This record gives sequence, C-alpha cells and structure tokens, in this order.
Amino acid sequence: MNDEEALEYHERLGGKIEIKSKARITDSAELSLAYTPGVSAPCKAIASEPEAVGRYTARNNMVAIVTDGSAVLGLGNIGPRASLPVMEGKSVLFKEFADINGYPLALDTQNPERLVNTIKLLEPTFAGINLEDIGSPHCFEVEDKLERALNVPVFHDDQHGTAVAVLAGLLNALELIGKDLSRAKVVVNGAGAAGIAISKLLLETGARDVIACDKIGVLHPDEKGLNKPQTQLAESINREGIRGNLNQALSGADAFVGVSAAGALPPEYVENMADDPIIFALANPKPEISREKAFAAGGKIVATGRSDHGNQINNLLVFPGIFRGALDVKAKKINSEMKIAAARAISDLVAEEQLDEEYIVPDPFEPELVSKVAEAVSAAAVDSGVAEPELKRKREA
Amino acid sequence: MNDEEALEYHERLGGKIEIKSKARITDSAELSLAYTPGVSAPCKAIASEPEAVGRYTARNNMVAIVTDGSAVLGLGNIGPRASLPVMEGKSVLFKEFADINGYPLALDTQNPERLVNTIKLLEPTFAGINLEDIGSPHCFEVEDKLERALNVPVFHDDQHGTAVAVLAGLLNALELIGKDLSRAKVVVNGAGAAGIAISKLLLETGARDVIACDKIGVLHPDEKGLNKPQTQLAESINREGIRGNLNQALSGADAFVGVSAAGALPPEYVENMADDPIIFALANPKPEISREKAFAAGGKIVATGRSDHGNQINNLLVFPGIFRGALDVKAKKINSEMKIAAARAISDLVAEEQLDEEYIVPDPFEPELVSKVAEAVSAAAVDSGVAEPELKRKREA
Repeated sequence: MNDEEALEYHERLGGKIEIKSKARITDSAELSLAYTPGVSAPCKAIASEPEAVGRYTARNNMVAIVTDGSAVLGLGNIGPRASLPVMEGKSVLFKEFADINGYPLALDTQNPERLVNTIKLLEPTFAGINLEDIGSPHCFEVEDKLERALNVPVFHDDQHGTAVAVLAGLLNALELIGKDLSRAKVVVNGAGAAGIAISKLLLETGARDVIACDKIGVLHPDEKGLNKPQTQLAESINREGIRGNLNQALSGADAFVGVSAAGALPPEYVENMADDPIIFALANPKPEISREKAFAAGGKIVATGRSDHGNQINNLLVFPGIFRGALDVKAKKINSEMKIAAARAISDLVAEEQLDEEYIVPDPFEPELVSKVAEAVSAAAVDSGVAEPELKRKREA
Repeated sequence: MNDEEALEYHERLGGKIEIKSKARITDSAELSLAYTPGVSAPCKAIASEPEAVGRYTARNNMVAIVTDGSAVLGLGNIGPRASLPVMEGKSVLFKEFADINGYPLALDTQNPERLVNTIKLLEPTFAGINLEDIGSPHCFEVEDKLERALNVPVFHDDQHGTAVAVLAGLLNALELIGKDLSRAKVVVNGAGAAGIAISKLLLETGARDVIACDKIGVLHPDEKGLNKPQTQLAESINREGIRGNLNQALSGADAFVGVSAAGALPPEYVENMADDPIIFALANPKPEISREKAFAAGGKIVATGRSDHGNQINNLLVFPGIFRGALDVKAKKINSEMKIAAARAISDLVAEEQLDEEYIVPDPFEPELVSKVAEAVSAAAVDSGVAEPELKRKREA
C-alpha cells in the first residue's frame, strides 16, 4: 500500500467512524420515547441510583481515546488535529475487535496539568480512558494523576499495550529456549513510554535481571540527564549496577527488547549475548535489526512489530481484550495483576504443539483472542479487588 | 407513555447511540489501511494542511453535545451522569434529522471557568459545540467566552433553539392577525436562558416594544435582584420604562411568550391584552395557561411546547437544520443573521394557503424542514461573513 491508496481509502470513507442512532425516529410516538418526555424516567432513575447509568445509557461501554497529538506513531509531535486518523483507527479497532465504543478526543493542549484537569471531567460520560500517543515523560504524570483521581480504568496504550504484548511473547520465547523469566537477563533498549512500562511489567512478573538502556547508555541512578521516570526505574533494575553502553549491557543477555530506533542493534552486539538469544526488534516500521541480520548474527527467536512476518508483537493483541475484560466487571482500574493475566492469556493461546520459533504469539485475528484475554482480565480484576466493591454493592442491592 | 414504558424502552436499547465503524477489519490488509501504516499519509496531509481534516476524518460532521447537568429539562440540577439519557436523545435527533454526528459529553463540573477551559480544548475534534441544559446565568458566561475563543459554532440550544422557534411561530402568528413585528408589543415571561435569548432575538429581528418579566416583575435596569444578563437585557428593552408585574406589562400587549412555569398566566391577565392576543405558553409539560383557558379568555392564537396539539413550538424545528447549515459551509459561528434566517425559513415552510390559527409552524417531521433551514442558514453565514474567510482561503489555495 502506498500513500495514495491510503489517502484514497480515507477520503472514500469520509471518516472511519460515525455515531449511530439505535433509535428510529419517524413519528411523534418514537420521539416521545427517545427524547421528551421519555428521557425523564431514566434521568430520575440515574439521579437516585448512579449505577443505573449502565442500564439506561451506553456509558458503561464507552471509552475515551484521548490524545494531545504529541507523539503520534513514528510521526512525532504533529498535534491533535493531525492525529485524528490514528484515533479514529483506534476506535475502529475497539469496535471491530471488542464491540467497545471508543470515542476519539484529540485535545488542544500539550500541558500535562491541563490534560489531567480536562480528562478528569470525563468520568460521567466514559467507563474507561485510553490514553494514546502522549509523549514521554508527560504521559507518566498524566496517567499517574488520572489513575488516582478517577474510578474508571486509565490505560496508556503506548506503555501498557506494548508491555503486555512483549511479556506475552517473551514468556513463550523463554519457554522455547527452556529458560524461566526469573532467571533470564533481559535488556530493554529505549527508555521512553514503552521501554519503561516493559521494564516495570517484567519486574512485576518476576524478572530479576533487567537492564534498560537509552541513547545515553545504561540507566543507572547516578547517571546524569535522566528524566524522573527513568531515574525511578533505574533504582529498581540493573541489579549489578553496571554502567556503560548497550553493547556492554547485552553481555550474556538472554533477550533484547528494542523499542528504540531503526538500526539501534548492530549485528556484532548480538554475538555478546547468551546462547540462543531472543531478539525483539520492535521499532516500527524499520526495526533495530532486520530479521535476516538478526538470524545471521546468531539470533534464535526474532520478533518485530511488522505484519509481514510471523511473531508480530502488536498492541492489537492486548487492548481490545484488556478493556473488554475491565468493562465487563466495571473495574476501577487496570492494575498489574490484570496486565499479567492478559499477557499469560495471550501466550496461552499458542498451544504447546503450535509453539515454534516462528510462532510465539497468536495472530491478532485469532477468533478466541479477545474473549480469552477478557475472561482472564475480568477474573484478575475481581481477584485483585479492583472490581470487588462494585460486585459487592450489586450483591447487596 | 408511562415511566415504566420509558424505562423498558431505554433498557432494551441499552443506550440509544453507539460508535459505528465504517471500516471492516477482517484481515491484515484492511488493518494496514485503517490503522498502521495506512493512517500515516492522512496524518501527514492534515499536519501540513489543517483543512484536510474534513477530507480524511469525520471531524467536520462532528458536534459535541456538552452539558454540566445543571438544568436538565424540568428536572433541574440532576448532575452530568443523570443527564446522559437526554444527551443521547439529542444525539439521536442530530443523526436522524440532520445526519450529524452529535457526541454527548456530560462533564463533571458546574464551574463556568472550568467548563470553558475544558470545552475550549475540543476544537480539534469537533466542528461545532452544542451547549445543552446548562443553567442560567452560567450559560451566558460559558457561551460568550467560548464564542470568543473558538473558531467553530457554539450554540446553547436552550437559548437559541427556543428563540428561533418562537420567532418563527410569532412571525406567522402576527401575519395572521395582520400585525408587523416592528409594531407589535411582545411580553416575554421568564427571564432565564430562553427568555433572555428570545427577547434579544426579537429585538434583532426588528421588534421595538418588548418587555421581559421574571418572578420579581418587569425587568427594569433599576430593579434590584437582577443578574447581570438580566440587567443588560433590561437596558435594551422596555422602551417605556415601566415597572410592575406581569399583569401590568400585558396591558395592550399583542403577544405573550411564556418560558416560565405552569399556571404563570392567569386567564384574567389575558383580558388586559390587545384584541386577538397571541399566547405562547411554552412551559413544559404544564403550560403557563391551558389551551382551553387561553381560548376561553379570548386568546386568538395559542401555542404550547406540547406535542399533543397543533402549534408545537419546539427546538427540534431548529437545531438540526441550523447546525446542518453551519457545518455545510464550515461557519465559524452561528450569528444572529443565521438565527433569523432559520426562523424565516421555518415560518416560510407554512405555505400561505396552509397558514391557520392552528397551524403556525410546520411539523418537525415535515420532510423539507431540515434542508430548507440548512440552505437559509448556509446562505446567511456566507452573506454575513462568518463562512467567507473559509471559502476565501479555499479559493486562494
């Protein structure tokens, strides 16, 4: 597909989403039901019992897809208006994969305080907030403040969607080479939104030997020039306290996870890694190292973000199911337990007999993907207590 | 219809609106077009030419239906969450009547400053802002600040939708009794959002003898206890500077326009009015005076807000067409010229031979209503210069 085809496609559709009315209004009887005076009764019902909003409106299946347009795909800071094709695309995926109504809100500010103050006000309308393409390090502050302020899930997909997909793939890749995550050495290259979230999720899942690198080299608490989220991360990883560059970090590493830039992994670095190295080169569209070069340098399992080969590590494996599962039990947040449950459900969708160096994650079109992930996420939400008060209230009612 | 039927209807639909994906995603080729990498080209196109947003996204046919839930129908301040059935109903009407995508945003604040700051950020996503059910006097401040800040139409329907519908009906009613608006005496009862907007629009259309009343009596600049918008209005109406109550105001009046409360017009007041008095008793669901009593007291032409008789003065006559017309020419605002054009288009839809005391406004289901109003509004937008810079830029491009 070239640019012309993509433009033609978008112009022909005239927008990839629309609001559909489920009510037909052809006479005044229908008008009376769908508008005045018919709306009075559900309004009063919700006023006296806020939970009734799920019964009488679409709210509990509505997710805001919010961006400031500051870090859109590989295009960078193109602003909110120009980000709309991506946000509409995301809405399409929410609907087509998980039957969720995702509404794009591209906001006209890149000030994190203003973003937070605005998004905070959306809770009456939305049962979840999907943050999208908000640059690092603002994204951490925005998500963190919103998580504390809101009683609905807040999920920055660039961080956690990627982290869950990486974890799912890595669990299967490690199984193939017979290593356990708790004993594996993993080097994450690129310490932006995705890299930081991946590193944290790996730790939370039991990894103990994680090193993160960025352009300045290995993240170390004493390193100058780190931003706050990077410094915080540096304090909990890199257990040997090494300093140096990516090449030094990779010495003896079992896995490389790149969320950085094209060509960031020179083939000779791979030779420093442990036997049977796992290489996730996820920079998009051009990976840190090409598949061919990765294999030639000794890579055992290679994954990319591209759809033209197997082992595509893609957020699409994650966000439809994780939101479906969270919304189904009215979860108040998407916590680590739910993310890990999602990753395990995704990796489990590759059956033992299918698991192969070229098939470590399921296809995003796998028919059971969303329902299996959603089930696991719902269960984890209830077990970890972020959906329980809701259910408890229901039982008591 | 009783409450039970209304609740059952809403529960069965499970929300009156949903987001519809216009793209089908069943394989990776479609995925590539609708999401990455296909979205890159339209993103870049919009980044370099902001106007292209209308070509590649749904934005230019998207209107935000924004409320704070502070003045919902006759229910009062029931809050944003409980207002959602109304907002979804409004979205349904936008879609069914004018093929506009109206997205409900019920915001979790009733502070006008915070409302303004939030709504200001919506311009990249929406081509228009429909304010709904925001209480007086906050609604004036919110609308005024937004109109000055934004380059898209901002329209508080409770004010202007009502005002335009009243003007349309009044023009035809005055024609029936053979009076001209410029020579008629009109008393508006209820000086909240609707009453103030009606009074202003009547002046802008050429009325010279308008008196507004509220609970405290006739609006006069020296009257104590008026809010700011009421004081401002008082300075431009009531040319004889009278003080007193509604009964005194009605002396010799040609028309009574009530946007107040049930029973606010005692039958004996009607007797003070001019011959062949026009009575618009629009309080809903119970009018200021019943039709029967209004006729018995000598009323010549009676209109209400109810759908069970003729002469229903209803916003639904107005907002679909006025937004359709504004969006069609990418108008930057909805100004008085456009409102007056809408009112005249509505009254013109009642053909000379149809015009009758029981038929002064068209039925909202009249098939030509929206297109005729839209045409008139588009033309007025261009003529009054609020759509011209847009077209000019296009011509120059």
